[in-house]
Amino acid sequence: MEKDFGGFKGVLIIGLGLIGGSIALSLKSEGYGGKIYGFDLSEDRVKTALEMGVIDAGFTDLKEVPWEEIDLVILATPVKTFQEVARQVKPFLKENTVITDVGSVKGELVEKLESFFLPNRFVGAHPIAGTEKEGVENAVDGLFKGKKLILTVDREDDATKRLEKFWTDLGSMVEVMDPYMHDFVFASVSHLPHAVAFALVDALIELSKETGIDLFLYPGAGFKDFTRIAASSPVVWKDIFLENKESVLHTIDSFINSMEKLKKYIQEEDGEKLVELLSEIRDKRLSL
Amino acid sequence: MEKDFGGFKGVLIIGLGLIGGSIALSLKSEGYGGKIYGFDLSEDRVKTALEMGVIDAGFTDLKEVPWEEIDLVILATPVKTFQEVARQVKPFLKENTVITDVGSVKGELVEKLESFFLPNRFVGAHPIAGTEKEGVENAVDGLFKGKKLILTVDREDDATKRLEKFWTDLGSMVEVMDPYMHDFVFASVSHLPHAVAFALVDALIELSKETGIDLFLYPGAGFKDFTRIAASSPVVWKDIFLENKESVLHTIDSFINSMEKLKKYIQEEDGEKLVELLSEIRDKRLSL
Repeated sequence: MEKDFGGFKGVLIIGLGLIGGSIALSLKSEGYGGKIYGFDLSEDRVKTALEMGVIDAGFTDLKEVPWEEIDLVILATPVKTFQEVARQVKPFLKENTVITDVGSVKGELVEKLESFFLPNRFVGAHPIAGTEKEGVENAVDGLFKGKKLILTVDREDDATKRLEKFWTDLGSMVEVMDPYMHDFVFASVSHLPHAVAFALVDALIELSKETGIDLFLYPGAGFKDFTRIAASSPVVWKDIFLENKESVLHTIDSFINSMEKLKKYIQEEDGEKLVELLSEIRDKRLSL
Repeated sequence: MEKDFGGFKGVLIIGLGLIGGSIALSLKSEGYGGKIYGFDLSEDRVKTALEMGVIDAGFTDLKEVPWEEIDLVILATPVKTFQEVARQVKPFLKENTVITDVGSVKGELVEKLESFFLPNRFVGAHPIAGTEKEGVENAVDGLFKGKKLILTVDREDDATKRLEKFWTDLGSMVEVMDPYMHDFVFASVSHLPHAVAFALVDALIELSKETGIDLFLYPGAGFKDFTRIAASSPVVWKDIFLENKESVLHTIDSFINSMEKLKKYIQEEDGEKLVELLSEIRDKRLSL
């Protein structure tokens, strides 16, 4: 099918960070025919995006945006700002403008935004893509190519079909998921691993204090790989843990159970059960 | 200083696995002037080592070893076999032959072997080097270059000095450590991370069962890196967990405490404490 990016003629990206910037950059390089507008509270970021040529016009004041030309608004600010941004944006929306986001937490927030934006249509989206860097200046062309994009669709309609086409034309593999299921899945495969990596480094800090030996002088096999994600942004991860609190706590409990099971087998010196457990785990990991 | 590998004229490597094979291969390529003998219960492994030219002679029967030419014996079989191997080897040892090992667990075992081999000298060693592969056929030339080697020295003497020279000439950075301290350090930096990676994969298996969703279809950022070590050998890790039981349990408890602390801050929605904790962790991780 021809690339038409869902037929949207004017896209406004709110938040010119890594993801917002990468959407703009990728639209440009994929030959998007419409206009790309950018909004950010930071004048520097708007200036950078203009200098990079990834947006056609940029604004730091919502009142200056040519709203009559906008038929797609993408919320690309931190998740915790969405409700406030929504409040500020809503009065300007023309009929039929579709609103979407790129946040990593969905669930109740998506339900709230769906209701709030009525009669306009809000459809939640989460591109499973990113780098450890931040800001439009680190935007990556083709960041979404071959990557999953979760669309939280309550009911299929014209807006969801157009958004699916928009992301498919950017190279994403679109998958539809319930917003609560989304939060549970990503608590398990992303938020829990981060929590575990943070806790592992914390344990080594505590054990170092307890014994007076700097354990970080002895990075064992795999330790660096393993804890690389523990260097992720404290503020971003505080937000994610709190915004996805229920699912994160649920997966942490499940993980502590697994840790206690392993501990029990070691305590009881149950070699047979240990080998059985570790073999099941290895088989699962190798199947990835 | 000239390379003399501690002046040992005949080295017997017991166990032609990855580490034993890599010692032989590295000795050859570093121009070791003495004889390298290999022993393994498997005829195939002895044959392979001979074909690779890494040993000068190989045996599957201890009685056939030319013991009068051996002044260094290296135990390179799995740690749990050491006491039985020691029992079989001891009657053959000539005066002044030094015995050492390459095992990853030290502590009480080292004390036992030190006593058992008297009047011969046993000195425990642990090269912090390896790959995920096994067997002499996967031996790596220069495996120990630039890598730490822990020598568990109860008292400095001629034997410890010669062993230090032996490993230094193979390119290792020799560090002396108490055997119990060694076990605690490696429980923290190697055994605990493995336990955590195993438990994380197990938690995802359990959460997948609980919800009916195959969570392994959604490998998030870092998840693959993170759980790579969960594909390690179940039998090897069962042995390590049980042989280093006390230290491993101690570090698991410390880790569970760290996990509970993180959980508490999330539960209480204490954003300030979360950012403070995650920042301390990030700083520590970045300093590696």
